[in-house]
Amino acid sequence: MKEFNYDLLILGGGPAGISAAIYAARGNLKTAIIDTSILGGQVNNTLEIENYPGFGLIGGFDLIQKFEDHVDKFDVDKHIMQEVKKVNLLGEEKVVETEEAIFKAKSIIIATGAQPAKLGVNGEQELLGRGVSYCAVCDGAFFREKVVTVVGGGNAAIEEALYLTKFASKVNIIHRRDQLRADKMYQERAFKDPKINFIWDSVVEEIKGGEKVETLAVKNVKTNEISDVATDGIFPYIGFSANTEMFTDQLELDPTGFINTDISLLTNIEGVFAAGDVRVTPLRQVIVSAADGAISANAAIRYIESKDTVLTK
Amino acid sequence: MKEFNYDLLILGGGPAGISAAIYAARGNLKTAIIDTSILGGQVNNTLEIENYPGFGLIGGFDLIQKFEDHVDKFDVDKHIMQEVKKVNLLGEEKVVETEEAIFKAKSIIIATGAQPAKLGVNGEQELLGRGVSYCAVCDGAFFREKVVTVVGGGNAAIEEALYLTKFASKVNIIHRRDQLRADKMYQERAFKDPKINFIWDSVVEEIKGGEKVETLAVKNVKTNEISDVATDGIFPYIGFSANTEMFTDQLELDPTGFINTDISLLTNIEGVFAAGDVRVTPLRQVIVSAADGAISANAAIRYIESKDTVLTK
Repeated sequence: MKEFNYDLLILGGGPAGISAAIYAARGNLKTAIIDTSILGGQVNNTLEIENYPGFGLIGGFDLIQKFEDHVDKFDVDKHIMQEVKKVNLLGEEKVVETEEAIFKAKSIIIATGAQPAKLGVNGEQELLGRGVSYCAVCDGAFFREKVVTVVGGGNAAIEEALYLTKFASKVNIIHRRDQLRADKMYQERAFKDPKINFIWDSVVEEIKGGEKVETLAVKNVKTNEISDVATDGIFPYIGFSANTEMFTDQLELDPTGFINTDISLLTNIEGVFAAGDVRVTPLRQVIVSAADGAISANAAIRYIESKDTVLTK
Repeated sequence: MKEFNYDLLILGGGPAGISAAIYAARGNLKTAIIDTSILGGQVNNTLEIENYPGFGLIGGFDLIQKFEDHVDKFDVDKHIMQEVKKVNLLGEEKVVETEEAIFKAKSIIIATGAQPAKLGVNGEQELLGRGVSYCAVCDGAFFREKVVTVVGGGNAAIEEALYLTKFASKVNIIHRRDQLRADKMYQERAFKDPKINFIWDSVVEEIKGGEKVETLAVKNVKTNEISDVATDGIFPYIGFSANTEMFTDQLELDPTGFINTDISLLTNIEGVFAAGDVRVTPLRQVIVSAADGAISANAAIRYIESKDTVLTK
């Protein structure tokens, strides 16, 4: 099996990971990014981004291309499509094993991101790709003139519901409370949109259908009444869970599974940093992930310099 | 005197302030930026920026223009060239008085930045603009084929020294210790540059000259010997101090004068947030300031929503 040695390994090639690589390479660290997929993370699933300062309005793919062009100015190795099998963070030398190689490094930045939370109801897994989707931008166009249902009340839910009105004849929004968490601008837009129909105080109990999604069993949490809601598609936007499964025995996580860090994004383990959506953060946005990459890489540079100084004295 | 009412006032129009305005306006807040100068802050004094992810290499002015174009897509008032006379943060209504107007708002973000620390020696003030400069990018071109001296050992000092080699015949770097704090990449570049001459373990005691800077009295801190160093220009890069003078009686600051915040960038006062270089931060970079703007604006939106909910119930 091939073995690689680096100063810094970055797990995850989304905005946090790419930004960290830019900063690390400029700080003269021998740096690699490892990703289970292609670079870009969730940005690849985002149609347009209007709040990465400096770019006005830009497509998700276009922004990631600009990030890639930027990191390609520097000497950074990219090991993509690598499934990580094992991680050892606790030693002085950090070790990551994929199916293809072993990677060793002095420091590591975890930027593995987060992913959509599942409803956890019958039919959700069975009808995935046959009406169940977590990505309106990817799949919305398959629902032209159909009825779709978004679950959730935050910015993501309302944004995606508004996006789906471009395709669907009707968009239900099922929310477990009687008001939205989303920004007022989104709320106002949604309330004004004639295609959007709110189903308040309700949760999805089951997703039903044969070949494709046909109806949702929806429970009103105040009355406990269950009714059927006809729909061709369902898009749950009820939150994100951190991609931290493989670190649970080594890293301190918060109760929802996100990584705790200090102000410099250091975890509970020396030389191990966390950046972007995977950490406990005040805001999950591309701009914040990019800043996290900078902060964590800078901290890794200082950490390695301090270790090297000690080792050579 | 004119009076303006806003949901959110942003003091300072650098990257943090502009980013905050983008996020606030998208969140439907009636938003204004107040700046004592033009928009852009310290970025206006930066020749090129190579680490704002997505832009590769971009001039400071160009990047600020892109930020301005971005914020101009939204309905944000800009009150520039306004000297702030008085600030009251403690009430439910935040009040800012300039020479021209009174501004009232529900919430305020302080993004007033930081500025170069002074050496505090004789001749520094007297010879300002006649050889003493804090901005190599602004003034370097005035020193073609001359000898200049940079004071400091961090990234800013070494970066600016390297920049000055484009113009000067010789660049002294005076540093109070025997090694640099700057990133290794900068160190390597500086050590390799034949125009750069290091003067270690030394501090500037006095800046001497008639019409213009002529010599520096330099003390070796290990031997206490003082020697004269001939120079045409001196560029101190010994740190930054926060622009927090007008908040000292209201805001909790750290011992060096920077604003303490929590993870959401809330200060010790309800409804008052701090973003960018002015706060206690792990890294002073454009990308971090831009993220701070996003985080603080989001927190301000949530704060105002929560107050409005309480007030109308």
